[in-house]
Amino acid sequence: MYKIVLIRHGESEWNKENRFTGWQDVPLSEKGLAEAKAAGALLKKEGYVFDKAFTSVLRRAIKTLWAVLEETDLMWIPVEKSWRLNERHYGALQGLNKADTAAKYGDAQVKIWRRSYATRPPLLEKSDERWPGRESRYASLSAEELPLGECLADTVSRVVPYWEQAIVPDVKAGRRVIVAAHGNSIRALVKYLDDVSEKDILEINIPTGVPLVYELGDDMKPIRHYYLGDAEAIAAAQAAVAKQGAAKK
Amino acid sequence: MYKIVLIRHGESEWNKENRFTGWQDVPLSEKGLAEAKAAGALLKKEGYVFDKAFTSVLRRAIKTLWAVLEETDLMWIPVEKSWRLNERHYGALQGLNKADTAAKYGDAQVKIWRRSYATRPPLLEKSDERWPGRESRYASLSAEELPLGECLADTVSRVVPYWEQAIVPDVKAGRRVIVAAHGNSIRALVKYLDDVSEKDILEINIPTGVPLVYELGDDMKPIRHYYLGDAEAIAAAQAAVAKQGAAKK
Repeated sequence: MYKIVLIRHGESEWNKENRFTGWQDVPLSEKGLAEAKAAGALLKKEGYVFDKAFTSVLRRAIKTLWAVLEETDLMWIPVEKSWRLNERHYGALQGLNKADTAAKYGDAQVKIWRRSYATRPPLLEKSDERWPGRESRYASLSAEELPLGECLADTVSRVVPYWEQAIVPDVKAGRRVIVAAHGNSIRALVKYLDDVSEKDILEINIPTGVPLVYELGDDMKPIRHYYLGDAEAIAAAQAAVAKQGAAKK
Repeated sequence: MYKIVLIRHGESEWNKENRFTGWQDVPLSEKGLAEAKAAGALLKKEGYVFDKAFTSVLRRAIKTLWAVLEETDLMWIPVEKSWRLNERHYGALQGLNKADTAAKYGDAQVKIWRRSYATRPPLLEKSDERWPGRESRYASLSAEELPLGECLADTVSRVVPYWEQAIVPDVKAGRRVIVAAHGNSIRALVKYLDDVSEKDILEINIPTGVPLVYELGDDMKPIRHYYLGDAEAIAAAQAAVAKQGAAKK
């Protein structure tokens, strides 16, 4: 039996401001850093040890991982960073306030953009200053790989090959792995691992800063999964994520 | 012309307490973290950008690097950690107060242990709880690689192959490299790069938290080197390092 830990970054400055973030490289809020440290302390208390870590190239996930590694006395383990673990790219919505966008386009449209499996958000133009092709961190990506805006299906398409080619070999080699990523890159992985339907994945919300443990069999199929920590607090955190897209009452 | 930046970690808790540290995994002091952040801010102000970072497996160097990467908006670049960049292993002296040790054995003996090129400090027993073979982070090292106590010549012997095999290929590929390491692993590198004599290297002191820039030719030989920042402050920091071994007056 193999065990991996997934963790969504703590609250970011834009989670706090309720803005669409995507690939915008927004820092953790103070609360988000505290969440990450608490997750690390919990993992240490529960006896978790890791041999290798994976994260995105976005600072909110990296900083979350760093806090966890510091709390667990594992700063020395190898860390691999990949754009494939980045948040879903939110296209032209990036930077917009979720409630304002809902007030303008309606809750239903925003829910489709946020949670539809196969409908892309409005796309970025390449001339847009938010286009990731301008950044050196994405210089190695091909034109096809550089997103202008992703639906969850697109995110699944880039996360799963990374799981198969980068993470699974370490897991199979017996390395204890932690993956610090984002709401939608983790949902992409969860959809794939648990074979969740396109409809059901819409209703799964990943709380920030809570370690999600997957136990996997030799075939890398999940045996079971569970969150670490206080069940009520986790449920409240999931409900808070689900509510973000609604217009302010 | 290639350019690399070396940086010794900021003050650690044991630098502050004036204790022999070596491979003991001591955290940065608050002042040390502030030094690291200031170094990052200075590198950013001076326009330095890095494509890859190297550091040791000790938290004071890793944390220094993390602070620099955070200040320079480069948290996403690949980081390679190796025991070969660790501080010189101080053998059975690790944990002892430098001034107490000098009072007991004399300044001259301590200076030999601290600064002699080829005289090892008193060695650790393998039964000692400080023996690095007990730690999972050193599980990949062979019995010959695991030190019981190093003189600077030993440190040079393990740092130089890492320079040649891990760092130089990245530099030659045009990647802009930063190396966050330790007083003696940086001295080992400086000795090799500048072909410093065994006698002269004794008098070279690397200040904490100050970026040391090396410009290298196509043959990887140094053209020149210089510290970034205020010259007087750097001289004072070097003098402080030089004085640490003396018994308290």
